[in-house]
Amino acid sequence: MPHLHLEYTANLTQLDTDKALLRLNHVLVASGQFGAEFDIKSRSLKVDSFRVGTAMTARGFVAVRLALLSGRSAQVKKQLSESLLAVVQELGPWPEGVQVQLSVELLDIDRDSYSKVAIG
Amino acid sequence: MPHLHLEYTANLTQLDTDKALLRLNHVLVASGQFGAEFDIKSRSLKVDSFRVGTAMTARGFVAVRLALLSGRSAQVKKQLSESLLAVVQELGPWPEGVQVQLSVELLDIDRDSYSKVAIG
Amino acid sequence: MPHLHLEYTANLTQLDTDKALLRLNHVLVASGQFGAEFDIKSRSLKVDSFRVGTAMTARGFVAVRLALLSGRSAQVKKQLSESLLAVVQELGPWPEGVQVQLSVELLDIDRDSYSKVAIG
Repeated sequence: MPHLHLEYTANLTQLDTDKALLRLNHVLVASGQFGAEFDIKSRSLKVDSFRVGTAMTARGFVAVRLALLSGRSAQVKKQLSESLLAVVQELGPWPEGVQVQLSVELLDIDRDSYSKVAIG
Repeated sequence: MPHLHLEYTANLTQLDTDKALLRLNHVLVASGQFGAEFDIKSRSLKVDSFRVGTAMTARGFVAVRLALLSGRSAQVKKQLSESLLAVVQELGPWPEGVQVQLSVELLDIDRDSYSKVAIG
Repeated sequence: MPHLHLEYTANLTQLDTDKALLRLNHVLVASGQFGAEFDIKSRSLKVDSFRVGTAMTARGFVAVRLALLSGRSAQVKKQLSESLLAVVQELGPWPEGVQVQLSVELLDIDRDSYSKVAIG
């Protein structure tokens, strides 16, 4: 832990996911909440099939989920969320004429049943 | 929020995901649980590598997850789940000779650490 | 339920996901925690865009998430997690020169709002 997922709709063609993941990871390291930079595992996924709402307007989204071990305070989680959103906001420019929603959610993962091992 | 994920196995070749997502979003709007149709962000993902159980029978699944902000009652969540499942059931026909499982799960997302912004 | 997701980074080119999913499902059946082998729905997803930490070292991961209905004891969940991790550890060999992290997390899904139906 932590595990970060970044989903983005395929109409956000200018998004540089390599840069995005590296910046997000740097923010997580800088938060001081995680033991080693090595522990931060992030990935992005392009969403080709999507629908925002019911109107036929051009829309898209970037959705970040950070899964982290349970036990952190509400304040710490809120700060993490806001600092990740700040990174996402700087990932533009966004395409003209597309309504883009950016979001960050945090998900607690049960600490007692989390297992891991490192190889190599 | 809410965020909806629809996963379906690649052997369900007749599934119309565009139609599915639009219908699911309409049901969420009609529930009256969400402030604006604009807030509903849905996507589908085709699962090419999968295994149902351990028998070698032809099987597949459609799995819907609705992530929504914490705080709704058990009754409201149960109704949302059942109304989404009703939509999924109507998405057939399903392929002959394939055992298909349809499921809907709801996941509470911590309200205090959810961040978002809209652009454009 | 249960639903299992196995994510693996694209640099783990020798991973046999068919074998992996079947073995993981067999372990879940053998646990005695689930009513029918038919209920176990597993899939794998190759992650093409990822970043582990901030260093430029060659790194990768296999991340398993088991979502199961709420109500099981901490001890049962810990045992399930460890037995799944044991399967993942045996999936090697892993590529030379790549630091690989293997992890298993369990996620409780609200039992009352879980809906499903089987067809065929």
